[in-house]
Amino acid sequence: MSTEEQGYFTEENSAEVVVSRNANAQNARLAEVIGILTRHLHAAVKEIEPTQEEWMQAILFLTETGHMCNDWRQEFILLSDVLGVSMLVDAINNRKPTGASESTVLGPFHVEDAPELPMGSNICLDQKGEPMLVKGRILSTGGHPIDQAKIDVWQANDEGFYDVQQKGIQPDFNLRGVFRTGPDGSYHFKGVKPKYYPIPADGPVGKMLESLGRHPYRPAHLHYILEADDFEPLITHIFDPDDPYIHSDAVFGVKESLLARFEWVEDVTRIAENGMDGPYYEVVHDFVLVPKGT
Amino acid sequence: MSTEEQGYFTEENSAEVVVSRNANAQNARLAEVIGILTRHLHAAVKEIEPTQEEWMQAILFLTETGHMCNDWRQEFILLSDVLGVSMLVDAINNRKPTGASESTVLGPFHVEDAPELPMGSNICLDQKGEPMLVKGRILSTGGHPIDQAKIDVWQANDEGFYDVQQKGIQPDFNLRGVFRTGPDGSYHFKGVKPKYYPIPADGPVGKMLESLGRHPYRPAHLHYILEADDFEPLITHIFDPDDPYIHSDAVFGVKESLLARFEWVEDVTRIAENGMDGPYYEVVHDFVLVPKGT
Repeated sequence: MSTEEQGYFTEENSAEVVVSRNANAQNARLAEVIGILTRHLHAAVKEIEPTQEEWMQAILFLTETGHMCNDWRQEFILLSDVLGVSMLVDAINNRKPTGASESTVLGPFHVEDAPELPMGSNICLDQKGEPMLVKGRILSTGGHPIDQAKIDVWQANDEGFYDVQQKGIQPDFNLRGVFRTGPDGSYHFKGVKPKYYPIPADGPVGKMLESLGRHPYRPAHLHYILEADDFEPLITHIFDPDDPYIHSDAVFGVKESLLARFEWVEDVTRIAENGMDGPYYEVVHDFVLVPKGT
Repeated sequence: MSTEEQGYFTEENSAEVVVSRNANAQNARLAEVIGILTRHLHAAVKEIEPTQEEWMQAILFLTETGHMCNDWRQEFILLSDVLGVSMLVDAINNRKPTGASESTVLGPFHVEDAPELPMGSNICLDQKGEPMLVKGRILSTGGHPIDQAKIDVWQANDEGFYDVQQKGIQPDFNLRGVFRTGPDGSYHFKGVKPKYYPIPADGPVGKMLESLGRHPYRPAHLHYILEADDFEPLITHIFDPDDPYIHSDAVFGVKESLLARFEWVEDVTRIAENGMDGPYYEVVHDFVLVPKGT
């Protein structure tokens, strides 16, 4: 229908009139996306019935959010995170068959050039925190061990900070490492028990969370990127199920299948068997990757 | 339902999990608004199924839009305008009884301190453009003339620019004036025929319009704020129905009832009767205001 036939904008036909203007779009996908967003946005506005002042508050919130963004702070990604949009996009793009390990958000703290380390290495370079041993296997959905799987792991320290947030305080590449499995698909490395931490809460998104009665914390977790030839890559976390924020991750990253058990081990035989120096947390977690083209 | 009972985030229950977090909001209206926006945003994302790259494009578009905003440029209002949201909010807040003049958007070019002029004055201070006489009456919905109605009018010039966009080129307060009716409710003033003009198109919103095959033009119009004791104020325009963009206003401001007729008058008797110097455009338009508390 042409815009002339469509008639002028009214409260009733608002979305249809706006969407009809995109009939000559060069970019068909953009027109589809903007069309869908327009319909849902108009439906939301009709349900909210904002006052002019509330509309202006929304304009100013978005403006402030934009002004908060710079080379090292992305407030719109934070907004997407706390509204569950980032996790929803992740879920849509990473639907997995039953039995496969699930994905979660990448987060802003991955670095590309972490060192590849011998299996069993301790990624904690400053001896701070409670010792942790993480081990398990990388398997295919068929149950077979995956040889030469690359495990890229990174974590916050016992105070909830990543190395890149504390340059000069933590050693470079602290609590990061890349490991490769052998034919049995097994892995193990040492680290420290991670701690919950807040997302940056000093901007408009943090103020919004506060007004909504929400806290800014993410429960303690380890980040992983797992890659192997002929398998879909997996970006995920494992979480401490005993963390006080496990049921209220500010960015909705927790999934049932990503809960690991952080077991406190004091048994001297097990301590000795695992080559630890004293009591430690033991985390056993297998990851299951999906063959490409499945 | 507590967040614990709600369970973890999944693709299926995404909006419910996010909204359930607002249960302890200090600001109940904010929680309502964010709840509605969250549900519609998640529905839109599920319909769009964006790739991770498309999601990042959206993040970067919002960031660029924010960075474009400064003291004299409001790119998020432009975005609201071109998506029809500004007009929808205007419509929701200005539902009028049958027979009343309809509202439209204020726009960014109103100034508070335009001079009050004797009825009949010419608001064109630089003699540029085609002469125009505008006249009519300010009436109540009951059909009675309104005494002491204040008419605040402003318009672009014959090239489509407001005085505030051309400081030093146009005289200050060019094509602006405030008039007050007498007991018969009538008004008349002189100006120049306005011209269509583009909204600012050199930012991300302009680029989006281009990709959508949309132009950035607003059809020629005059702006009004009408105020009178005991009546609801009215913010509106009148439009030239012969403008090439009358069916495709970039901000959706046109309404059927806001179309005026711009009649080209060459008749020497009418020219003399109306005190004009030569041929001119005559625009006759009555405005109908709504008594307060209706």
